[in-house]
Amino acid sequence: MTTLAHETDIEVRFRDLDPLGHVNHAVYASYCEQARIRYLRDVLDLTADDLPMVVANLELNYRKPVTFDEELTVGVSVASVGDSSFTMEYELRTDDVVATAETTQVVVDRETKRPTSVPSEWRERFHEYEPALD
Amino acid sequence: MTTLAHETDIEVRFRDLDPLGHVNHAVYASYCEQARIRYLRDVLDLTADDLPMVVANLELNYRKPVTFDEELTVGVSVASVGDSSFTMEYELRTDDVVATAETTQVVVDRETKRPTSVPSEWRERFHEYEPALD
Amino acid sequence: MTTLAHETDIEVRFRDLDPLGHVNHAVYASYCEQARIRYLRDVLDLTADDLPMVVANLELNYRKPVTFDEELTVGVSVASVGDSSFTMEYELRTDDVVATAETTQVVVDRETKRPTSVPSEWRERFHEYEPALD
Amino acid sequence: MTTLAHETDIEVRFRDLDPLGHVNHAVYASYCEQARIRYLRDVLDLTADDLPMVVANLELNYRKPVTFDEELTVGVSVASVGDSSFTMEYELRTDDVVATAETTQVVVDRETKRPTSVPSEWRERFHEYEPALD
Repeated sequence: MTTLAHETDIEVRFRDLDPLGHVNHAVYASYCEQARIRYLRDVLDLTADDLPMVVANLELNYRKPVTFDEELTVGVSVASVGDSSFTMEYELRTDDVVATAETTQVVVDRETKRPTSVPSEWRERFHEYEPALD
Repeated sequence: MTTLAHETDIEVRFRDLDPLGHVNHAVYASYCEQARIRYLRDVLDLTADDLPMVVANLELNYRKPVTFDEELTVGVSVASVGDSSFTMEYELRTDDVVATAETTQVVVDRETKRPTSVPSEWRERFHEYEPALD
Repeated sequence: MTTLAHETDIEVRFRDLDPLGHVNHAVYASYCEQARIRYLRDVLDLTADDLPMVVANLELNYRKPVTFDEELTVGVSVASVGDSSFTMEYELRTDDVVATAETTQVVVDRETKRPTSVPSEWRERFHEYEPALD
Repeated sequence: MTTLAHETDIEVRFRDLDPLGHVNHAVYASYCEQARIRYLRDVLDLTADDLPMVVANLELNYRKPVTFDEELTVGVSVASVGDSSFTMEYELRTDDVVATAETTQVVVDRETKRPTSVPSEWRERFHEYEPALD
């Protein structure tokens, strides 16, 4: 179990469950989103109504089912920063790792909504917050 | 602000928001559901996969919008117990009351799924837990 | 079974189901919302990103469970128009009526977000579209 | 634009949107799920309350944002069949391709919930339905 840079606690809601009584697989993407937005708030001072980026790619690997009212911790780290995008990796844990995930976000200009460079300030803050980041 | 018998904390997720940037009005019903199921767990020892009842009625009154990452407390009490149903009332608070709600649940037989009497043990536990209940 | 002025078809999704295998009760509020926004589009020419109103009250009465992949029709009518609010009623049907609902919307000013009068043009269009409206 | 073997239409709901006014990225996983379950119903005669499999992996690539009330078509095909798992690929289209996806399902025994072989009858039906499948 790796240690990721930032952690968010999530409580499983009844509405997250599907007819099998487990957290529906699509809901894991929302758990990662919650962890990602808190990371962006804590590290980049971005607010939920000002997130100049779009998710371009999502990958989720499911290991164990999760049930009602369990508390998950979502660990999240920036894994790499490119010219106009950055990749985050996630680990969802209860007692054990229940899933891992990766998302790539493309940075967009607040006005034109077109892809733009990762701001140098973001780059600095990512590196400051995550010494292991290349 | 009344004091209801049981309290559940809920953290607002990004996925709960709608295009106005506020918690979508339908999601409040899920917040109440979460509070209700925890009450039923704590007071009646019911588990999320064994809830022999159906919601027959829901009423929600919205007072203030709620935004990302706010923490709500949902207070819940049993307001009345009938022959085969019982009514719960809810108060959703951040710093202030943001909504109130009421739901009526009809108790159903675990096998036949038909309405049945409120078990006398439930009745006793409700009264034990809520001295103000008639 | 009354005839309401406007109809919207909704297909039940797997994600709408809860551990009982039925459409979760909170999801009915989203079905009504979908029907309401289409009504507002068709009758008032409002778009989903310009809905100057908030839901102040929701009441839902559940009659029958709904399962996967059923198609519902949601009938909706304006039931009354007040100074700064209007009330809509809903009937959700499969072969039979599965639920009824009522919502009250408060009209808000696009700039100040404060309650404001129902625009006279809306009032006219409601009456034109619904001859039975007082 | 490839032609996938099976198609499902999905109407975007207001509740699918996020604060940016676009379909939230997690909701695409639910759209794929809907398409998958209809495929399994149509090709394997499985019902939504009897799906002896779990999603082990999900990958989604997002190309274009989707807004309210658009109608999507989700094309889906079985891409490969292994010993105890099978992989499906998806294409989500409005006028244009808005996203592609891939999921892997592990077949589980209805009693033990442990991984088990893909039933030979499923294998036959997949090949019958999809001549291009190796």
